[in-house]
Amino acid sequence: MGRSGDVVDVRVQRSKAAVLAQTYELLSAGGIGGVSIDEVSRRSGVSKTTIYRHWPSRAALLVEACSTIGSAPQVPDTGSFGGDLTALTEELAEQLRTARWAAVLPSIVDAAEREPELAGLHAQLHARLMAPFGAVTERARDRGELAAGREPAEVTAAVAGPLFYRRWFSREPLDAPFVRRVVEAALDQFRVPR
Amino acid sequence: MGRSGDVVDVRVQRSKAAVLAQTYELLSAGGIGGVSIDEVSRRSGVSKTTIYRHWPSRAALLVEACSTIGSAPQVPDTGSFGGDLTALTEELAEQLRTARWAAVLPSIVDAAEREPELAGLHAQLHARLMAPFGAVTERARDRGELAAGREPAEVTAAVAGPLFYRRWFSREPLDAPFVRRVVEAALDQFRVPR
Repeated sequence: MGRSGDVVDVRVQRSKAAVLAQTYELLSAGGIGGVSIDEVSRRSGVSKTTIYRHWPSRAALLVEACSTIGSAPQVPDTGSFGGDLTALTEELAEQLRTARWAAVLPSIVDAAEREPELAGLHAQLHARLMAPFGAVTERARDRGELAAGREPAEVTAAVAGPLFYRRWFSREPLDAPFVRRVVEAALDQFRVPR
Repeated sequence: MGRSGDVVDVRVQRSKAAVLAQTYELLSAGGIGGVSIDEVSRRSGVSKTTIYRHWPSRAALLVEACSTIGSAPQVPDTGSFGGDLTALTEELAEQLRTARWAAVLPSIVDAAEREPELAGLHAQLHARLMAPFGAVTERARDRGELAAGREPAEVTAAVAGPLFYRRWFSREPLDAPFVRRVVEAALDQFRVPR
């Protein structure tokens, strides 16, 4: 590609980045309902025609704007199921207390109840955010640390459930002693007795 | 009050009921974002002036329209903490699978993140829905069924958390074996060992 092609490409990339940034701004400020192509166009200075050339629908734009929400958490490797689950759950609690996505996710959960295309977005985000719990549980199983007769797939519900409940439903503080008790209860339930 | 007063009163009650019903319809169909006074007025045939006479704000209208959401669940009385918690959790799972409020609550959770007046609505609804868990836990404590060194206030997070997680976040089925395991894990955690 020649020089002028590069310039065009840089411009396209800049426009796309501006559109995605404004979409995410609107999403943070007003939830999914606050994102309209009109408003994204107005704020980014990118025409609606151009926006629709890159993203065929509002949902497609939302999917890409959200793709960096809650960037995939690191999978800890402390050498034990207890250490890994503690590290991951403490990290999740910290994100729920402070990360921007924690204020945005309910809007996506809500949209997923009604709009099939946004249900797909929700499923992708959820899978990415929760994948590390699956990874440390798999590793614990490989090491023989999981109790027989338990469902490893339920580890995530056992730790994320009470944290999500406090963050979004009862809106109680996610303090360190609570987080510790949630992890201990999950280990009592899923770890092979020592 | 004379006869004509009664007639006026009946008309007022009918108008209010129509407004509340249409508000709840719009809420169910499109979430909080789908409720506007304009649209409620159009559908109910009640003027905006009259609506604002009864409810000073959209939030006040939403609060009253939601006041019947998830009508206060019965508090079971089976004679034991295990029996009560099982009955309540099974009832909650059934509501999450089928009740209309289960599709509406995420919208209220989302609104609570941004609008203080709707955060109040959310807190009221949440308190009413979850009150029976507090009641059966109090009774269990009075009977000496609660384990020492546990936080009774955390019983609700331990059972509702994993159920809410599956209903709204992972969107996995709330099947009977899962619900049973959640209750058993909570009893292991909070009930005095037998």
